[in-house]
Amino acid sequence: MAVNRRDVVKGMAMGGAAITSSAAAAAPGGDKIVHHVFFWLKRPDSSADRDQLIAGLRTLAGVEVVRSLQIGVPASTEQRDVVDSSFHVSELIVFDNVVDQKIYQDHPVHQAFVAKCGHLWRKVIVYDMKTV
Amino acid sequence: MAVNRRDVVKGMAMGGAAITSSAAAAAPGGDKIVHHVFFWLKRPDSSADRDQLIAGLRTLAGVEVVRSLQIGVPASTEQRDVVDSSFHVSELIVFDNVVDQKIYQDHPVHQAFVAKCGHLWRKVIVYDMKTV
Repeated sequence: MAVNRRDVVKGMAMGGAAITSSAAAAAPGGDKIVHHVFFWLKRPDSSADRDQLIAGLRTLAGVEVVRSLQIGVPASTEQRDVVDSSFHVSELIVFDNVVDQKIYQDHPVHQAFVAKCGHLWRKVIVYDMKTV
Repeated sequence: MAVNRRDVVKGMAMGGAAITSSAAAAAPGGDKIVHHVFFWLKRPDSSADRDQLIAGLRTLAGVEVVRSLQIGVPASTEQRDVVDSSFHVSELIVFDNVVDQKIYQDHPVHQAFVAKCGHLWRKVIVYDMKTV
């Protein structure tokens, strides 16, 4: 996903070892890939911007390798030191494997989303996990 | 979840406004709560510690309000600046609503997990999202 590199959180992508990286290229039907993306809006007080981002995210369901898509906003759970509720919108997608995840990244529908909505956010963090 | 407060990532839980916080106390059957927790181990090279944490997380499926539980490790997706693959284990739980999420936090099974495994991690970040 295209982002403004200067806006990437310092300290992220620190090159920490992925414990099972060598085993994570699951075969079709194997372990799932859970792709969770958190967005921080440039204009967090703009409900129009938030709604535009959410509408854009909904188009991603049209990518054939997307097994499930959930879109969310911060929940009103108890505020604890460990809870990061500073994000504004998040997207949770499940893929069958890392090959499908790559197909998604390069897919015209995903590229169109980034082109149309990329100006809305100032920061994004992506977590990709392989289920075990 | 008990953590060492000194280890909490600086800048997390900054008190950013939850846009829909007033609406997030979903009624039963309403919007779901997606609870995603990322763990950084004290001893990331210890597969025994990792396995113990994963085994502990699996016990959380025994909490009756847990609608689904997925446990993962970093996937071998493309390394990009926006991807944080520095975590070691993550847990993704879906609840029906924030009331259930609170029941889970206080549940003996969850408390036992924290008591038994809390020494394994040095940092934890929690994201709670309400699906829209």
